[in-house]
Amino acid sequence: MRPVNVGLLGLGTVGRGTVTVLERNAREIERRAGRGIRVVRAAVRDDTRDRGLGQIELELTTSAEEVVDDPEVAVVVELIGGIEPARELVLRAIEQGKHVVTANKALIALHGNEIFDAAGRCGVVVAFEAAVAGGIPIIKAVREGLAGNRIEWLAGIINGTGNFILTEMREHGRAFTDVLAQAQALGYAEANPSYDVEGIDAAHKLTILASIAFGIPLQFHRVFTEGISRITPADIAYAGELGYRIKHLGVARCHERGVELRVHPTLIPRRRLIANVDGVMNAVLVKGDALGPTLYYGAGAGAEATASAVVADLIDVVRVLTSDPENRVPHLAFQPDALSDLPILPIDDIVTAYYLRLEAEDRPGVLADITRILGDAGISIEAILQKEPLAGARHVPIIMLTHRVIEGHMNQAIAAMEALPSVNGHVTRIRLEHLDAS
Amino acid sequence: MRPVNVGLLGLGTVGRGTVTVLERNAREIERRAGRGIRVVRAAVRDDTRDRGLGQIELELTTSAEEVVDDPEVAVVVELIGGIEPARELVLRAIEQGKHVVTANKALIALHGNEIFDAAGRCGVVVAFEAAVAGGIPIIKAVREGLAGNRIEWLAGIINGTGNFILTEMREHGRAFTDVLAQAQALGYAEANPSYDVEGIDAAHKLTILASIAFGIPLQFHRVFTEGISRITPADIAYAGELGYRIKHLGVARCHERGVELRVHPTLIPRRRLIANVDGVMNAVLVKGDALGPTLYYGAGAGAEATASAVVADLIDVVRVLTSDPENRVPHLAFQPDALSDLPILPIDDIVTAYYLRLEAEDRPGVLADITRILGDAGISIEAILQKEPLAGARHVPIIMLTHRVIEGHMNQAIAAMEALPSVNGHVTRIRLEHLDAS
Repeated sequence: MRPVNVGLLGLGTVGRGTVTVLERNAREIERRAGRGIRVVRAAVRDDTRDRGLGQIELELTTSAEEVVDDPEVAVVVELIGGIEPARELVLRAIEQGKHVVTANKALIALHGNEIFDAAGRCGVVVAFEAAVAGGIPIIKAVREGLAGNRIEWLAGIINGTGNFILTEMREHGRAFTDVLAQAQALGYAEANPSYDVEGIDAAHKLTILASIAFGIPLQFHRVFTEGISRITPADIAYAGELGYRIKHLGVARCHERGVELRVHPTLIPRRRLIANVDGVMNAVLVKGDALGPTLYYGAGAGAEATASAVVADLIDVVRVLTSDPENRVPHLAFQPDALSDLPILPIDDIVTAYYLRLEAEDRPGVLADITRILGDAGISIEAILQKEPLAGARHVPIIMLTHRVIEGHMNQAIAAMEALPSVNGHVTRIRLEHLDAS
Repeated sequence: MRPVNVGLLGLGTVGRGTVTVLERNAREIERRAGRGIRVVRAAVRDDTRDRGLGQIELELTTSAEEVVDDPEVAVVVELIGGIEPARELVLRAIEQGKHVVTANKALIALHGNEIFDAAGRCGVVVAFEAAVAGGIPIIKAVREGLAGNRIEWLAGIINGTGNFILTEMREHGRAFTDVLAQAQALGYAEANPSYDVEGIDAAHKLTILASIAFGIPLQFHRVFTEGISRITPADIAYAGELGYRIKHLGVARCHERGVELRVHPTLIPRRRLIANVDGVMNAVLVKGDALGPTLYYGAGAGAEATASAVVADLIDVVRVLTSDPENRVPHLAFQPDALSDLPILPIDDIVTAYYLRLEAEDRPGVLADITRILGDAGISIEAILQKEPLAGARHVPIIMLTHRVIEGHMNQAIAAMEALPSVNGHVTRIRLEHLDAS
């Protein structure tokens, strides 16, 4: 059978990785797909630069439209990133009846509903495994492997840069800004690191995971997002004393009344496998009603790791080239007309446990005032650590773990504690999830 | 669209779990598959016994042939286990053009080549996700999710009973026979536990994983298998002192000259995620050339966990009911005519590191004799622990970790050490794998 012709948009890190993997593993891929896969054209911003692709022959053009419109091209791989012109080019490919593979999480999280709608009308597939957790086949696992389950919740370390920073802070007691600078020097973090450290990148991925897990439309703008820039080495050390690790988690949980969607620093019991996922690695823990918890771990970024997902998608697309549209795996796991209109819950309605750290005057009665505020709000305390005051300091750090409580109640309690004259400054609050099987 | 009618062979633990999950999640499943899935008939040994299925209506028969031959039945789910009559019934279903879903690892490992051959001739799918690691979608991950990779090796904890026993031995210093008795009482281990503790069950699963990873025919009889019954709490403690955990691993590694296929107790560095997979849980670590290492963790057994995989297979089968046979995912990941004839390597050719424990006389020169034997065989030592002799004992335990060496050379060195008059009894040898990214 003739090979399938692929047009590539973008020849950056992942684009070069994809070309390299398709070339190096051409024989293995054909042994699996029953058909070769060949990149025939690639659109680049500058077609004179050397791409370091060695012997691999590839026709380059600076016109992305030319690649999309090329009648030889059956599948378009979009690796430009960002919203425009990626969105426009993907829709243009779809309208021409071409299948699309993309690694673009922002595009899918923000415009996926529109894109899948167009794909449905035109009878093509848009595959996006590479958009979440790099090469880990998490989309396939949740969408197909767990298709018999009602998925109750999932929690993921889905931003490698953030995980690298928290790991370094824990292992070496270093400050956030210090490690961030190193991550930038190593090329892990962007020059503008806010997508990574403020949780926007993780929110893109969580949006996609929640949709395929629960059968809801993509709703990026409803994700609650809190970054890791205010985490201190002291918080990490205190959490450690209490038996916890701090991870930047994306959490999605389905209730009858709605869906939790949140990205924030989270304490996790140290004995959980996911608490031991360190450095730039990613992992997603998924709880199905039949299967119980499963965990998927691997590289969440990198040229060839991400290319691995792009190529897997290409092989899937090759297989469905001749299959009826109605028998394909639905883009968001559930049939388009079976999506649910469950609301995304406001963060005030979330129930979670908390790590609280505050500075209070070192005199009798202060702790009683604080615990009375918590008690009045119906918040029970699981553990308290009271540290010695630093020499000459008027205030001592008090660290508390609470049982689970509605976030709205906790907000009120925190406001009341901050209003106490004996409490200095703000109360640091980090959410805590046990991630046990329930 | 009308629901797909399923005939069930066997209504034991997994059979009941499958009926329960299909019923409880009927709405979710139809939202995903675009079509309902309904068990219309089930074959049981005794059709008068109460199955504890409550409200679920199900026509029971004691004739498996009747279920297979029922013209209403489009898909046969085989959950009898064992070789016969399962093999005969699966082939009978295939010959009638019916798709088959099975959880039967022994059947696939021993007769999969014949079964897939028949399925190819008859244009049907035989799905077997539930045969390996219970509900973890490891077949799908390796076969489809990692399809762009040359898979270099994989290593798995793929027998929950064995892992439970080793975990209990480590955490409580208990003896093997003691924990085995408890596992039997808890219903984890069979009355005849040899499939679990001698590694036969793991070898079935490893056979299947290696085929879909490397594109080789199923070759169960070439798997090297060593059980865990000779592991002592002392070995586990010594390994711990040296920074390792002992796990019963299935290891498959692809070389140009052939394939390693082996199940044996293995030391793993404690910092590896897979070393921290405890109790009855399963995990498989897979190394792809593009993706690097990924790990898949979850419940390897249990009624609903296994049913989760059976139902996912059913949903896949529903989707391919109308798709062309040549565009389906190949049973063994690679197209049938693209399987490779790479040999499975004899265990003597394997290269691995070792943990050695022996009892030697507590006098000068003995250690020199032992290390000279290792040196002469080209085996270098990474660490030595020499323990104090027990009060009144003539012999002291000596524990060594070696660097990597060909197993054949190690066998000769062990024979030479055992021949030393100063060495008492046998040398205990446990293989050690670093499972690092290389």
